[in-house]
Amino acid sequence: MDAAEFRRRGKEMVDYVADYLENIEKRPVYPDVEPGYLHSLIPTEAPLEPESYEDVIKDVERVIMPGITHWHSPYFFAYFPAASSYPAMLADMLCGALGCIGFSWAASPACTELETVMLDWLGKMLQLPECFIAGTHGSGGGVIQGTASEATLVSLLAARCKVIRRVQATNSSYSESDVFGKLVAYTSEQAHSSVERAALIGGVMMKQVPTDDSYAVRVDMLKKMIEKDKAAGLIPFYFCATLGTTPSCAFDHVVELGPLCNEENIWMHIDAAYAGSAFICPEFRPLLNGVEFADSFNFNPHKWLLVNFDCSAMWVKKRTDIIGAFKMEPLYLKHENQESGLITDYRHWQIPLGRRFRSLKLWFVFRLYGLQGMQAHIRKHVALAKEFESLVRADKRFEICAEVIMGLVCFRLKGSNELNQNLLKQITDSREIHLVPCQLSGRFVLRFAVCARTTESSHIQQAWRHITQLTFELLQEPSH
Amino acid sequence: MDAAEFRRRGKEMVDYVADYLENIEKRPVYPDVEPGYLHSLIPTEAPLEPESYEDVIKDVERVIMPGITHWHSPYFFAYFPAASSYPAMLADMLCGALGCIGFSWAASPACTELETVMLDWLGKMLQLPECFIAGTHGSGGGVIQGTASEATLVSLLAARCKVIRRVQATNSSYSESDVFGKLVAYTSEQAHSSVERAALIGGVMMKQVPTDDSYAVRVDMLKKMIEKDKAAGLIPFYFCATLGTTPSCAFDHVVELGPLCNEENIWMHIDAAYAGSAFICPEFRPLLNGVEFADSFNFNPHKWLLVNFDCSAMWVKKRTDIIGAFKMEPLYLKHENQESGLITDYRHWQIPLGRRFRSLKLWFVFRLYGLQGMQAHIRKHVALAKEFESLVRADKRFEICAEVIMGLVCFRLKGSNELNQNLLKQITDSREIHLVPCQLSGRFVLRFAVCARTTESSHIQQAWRHITQLTFELLQEPSH
Repeated sequence: MDAAEFRRRGKEMVDYVADYLENIEKRPVYPDVEPGYLHSLIPTEAPLEPESYEDVIKDVERVIMPGITHWHSPYFFAYFPAASSYPAMLADMLCGALGCIGFSWAASPACTELETVMLDWLGKMLQLPECFIAGTHGSGGGVIQGTASEATLVSLLAARCKVIRRVQATNSSYSESDVFGKLVAYTSEQAHSSVERAALIGGVMMKQVPTDDSYAVRVDMLKKMIEKDKAAGLIPFYFCATLGTTPSCAFDHVVELGPLCNEENIWMHIDAAYAGSAFICPEFRPLLNGVEFADSFNFNPHKWLLVNFDCSAMWVKKRTDIIGAFKMEPLYLKHENQESGLITDYRHWQIPLGRRFRSLKLWFVFRLYGLQGMQAHIRKHVALAKEFESLVRADKRFEICAEVIMGLVCFRLKGSNELNQNLLKQITDSREIHLVPCQLSGRFVLRFAVCARTTESSHIQQAWRHITQLTFELLQEPSH
Repeated sequence: MDAAEFRRRGKEMVDYVADYLENIEKRPVYPDVEPGYLHSLIPTEAPLEPESYEDVIKDVERVIMPGITHWHSPYFFAYFPAASSYPAMLADMLCGALGCIGFSWAASPACTELETVMLDWLGKMLQLPECFIAGTHGSGGGVIQGTASEATLVSLLAARCKVIRRVQATNSSYSESDVFGKLVAYTSEQAHSSVERAALIGGVMMKQVPTDDSYAVRVDMLKKMIEKDKAAGLIPFYFCATLGTTPSCAFDHVVELGPLCNEENIWMHIDAAYAGSAFICPEFRPLLNGVEFADSFNFNPHKWLLVNFDCSAMWVKKRTDIIGAFKMEPLYLKHENQESGLITDYRHWQIPLGRRFRSLKLWFVFRLYGLQGMQAHIRKHVALAKEFESLVRADKRFEICAEVIMGLVCFRLKGSNELNQNLLKQITDSREIHLVPCQLSGRFVLRFAVCARTTESSHIQQAWRHITQLTFELLQEPSH
């Protein structure tokens, strides 16, 4: 395919994309296929000679679309949102064309420098303390990670490196593996599975902190665990707090947890993967109070800030903490500016070496929405969640299972877990709306997350009508 | 921005992208900016209200382009290639629009299933042994990782998990950290820095195996190290072989190393990040012989197989080895098909949880180029490297420093390291071509890698004229 054909096919693809998104709600949100459906639809080997573009594009509807869960349908209420916007898609086209792999400053200075400035812009929108902003000549700064999982892992590894050096400095007889065996990390029992996974990868013990009635970690409980572990000769070194947990969007009390961590020399990482975007609104910013005690903080603009996946924003208070944990300097990656102290080589900040020019997406979205446009997006989703909450509360058969603070509503039918499992199965099988469950205090709960950029009140109302209709049918069955 | 405006702006962007790539060689390949150049060109905060699209797009030329290292310029000969093609870019546009996050089968069945089939197509093109192909109902299969660094890390963690279970099964008194302290991994002294980094992340010792005259690892040397370490009570568990090292594109002798690893119960991972693409050509496939002994194998279609970053293809012989190392099952990620044994949840195969629909790029590229088209691309690059090699060999002032097998030529001026450092500095400062150095046997060597899809003989000839002109000037200087 030459440039001339790309001009033609690219414009057709732009129309295909616009058509898809304009008409997405006509498609069933959840696909009706069985595992293995795709194998029989395509050959078992690649073609020897080129096929025609028409044949390929026809297969998108024939092979791909039947197996798509339409994350951007206004009837998609599962997991958490995956952000999407036209400005981000335009920026991604440009990113693909530039195709630079920005592992070092020299590999494309614009790629590194725009990222640093965009993370500063974003940090300022969140009113992060100055120590996290690179442009203040402080010792902190921001970086784009692929996912929150990677941000958590990077912070845990940095904390592990730091504590090993500290312990060995005072106990020179300790080998690295002696220290490893004593290290203990903490996170909420409600934390995302990726936090436990980070500890597994890092080879350290992680303990789950029990939460209070609102599924949040309080300082007393963590303090008790730390004291017990210290008495047993263990070395507490890392705590991952969550602002906006995955099951119920609960907020750990970082204002009280932060000082304890600082006192105990424990790295506090804050994972606000979903909720973090909302902190650009002054009314939600108080939920971030206590971030000043954190060593690192992370949230995903690719969830709720109109920036297509992947784009997970992470800030650290001391860049040397994370760079020190990973730095490797082979000659083929050296460049003359790197010792100047003025530049950032982001490869030292992350797990992979290569990286795309992802800050372009932030730049396009920030400028084409403006802060007010992004705030409006957040507020609309929260209002829609409140609207759904009201509908649930008005129906005596249902209960709300956790405080609705952002765009997530946890609810269930009053009754057994089995009853709620049946309701969810009916919902999933009907394919009109899509949502997933969670477990809260041993109860099977339905999670209703406002996800798509284009979700409106009419979709919320329609979703609720659908749920109550299925409920009606379910409760009619003889077994109930 | 609504769909109507996206249609307009998207088509403009398609033209911008085509214009950029058609005229890329008119731009200086390496940017003329100082660290921090970008700060003064843009505001320090995001705008409150939306800006006009015209203003944003104008800033691409004003702010971004001056700081771009043009990886797709035919005069870019640095690092290794970053692949780029129009079919891959079209697929990426579609991927952005679908915007599904394929962490599980249910999150978009097509995303998972196309990936499995595309990795089978690719595995068959490479003539991988059947045990790596998912469609054979064997126990192996393929997955797309973001980068080779992640593939190496995932394989090391899987090997670590496996050896710990094995050791603890026979020595129940050993704690996990007891085993950790005894584990030892190996890789070539010429291996990529990401291999050593994987060990650092995994918290295990890694030893560098000295190489022979052609910078390759031979079995005798590894065997000697393993025996010594075993005698010292250590537990050898992992060897990362490289096919096509970063400094000089050397090939470890996996045909002899594989049996040793199998005998010693050592996980052998093969990293062929760059060279792997060439194995689709029958004449290069013998270099992959021995892969049948490997537990995992990886290469980057995003380097040399026309698929835009990121797309790193990895195969494992036993999927349970890598799934077992990472599996976590919170309720919000469960779905009804997962226990059927028929489906793949790729989140268990990788470090991040989220993942883009990257197999679309493979599908578009495989079908629109065909195997023959991709082979032609590889062969053209190798021929261009041979052409450059001939030019170097014909000039008595220069020497070739490693056998030229693929698209990389390692060369230097006969003389001191300082002389060659000066030559490289002249090249870098002139911004007409771009390349980076490496170190081979203590000597400073220039790496000339054929990178861009559009590089032709004329660019090779022009690059050589430029290098010899700078050499002429350099050798004229009184100091020489």
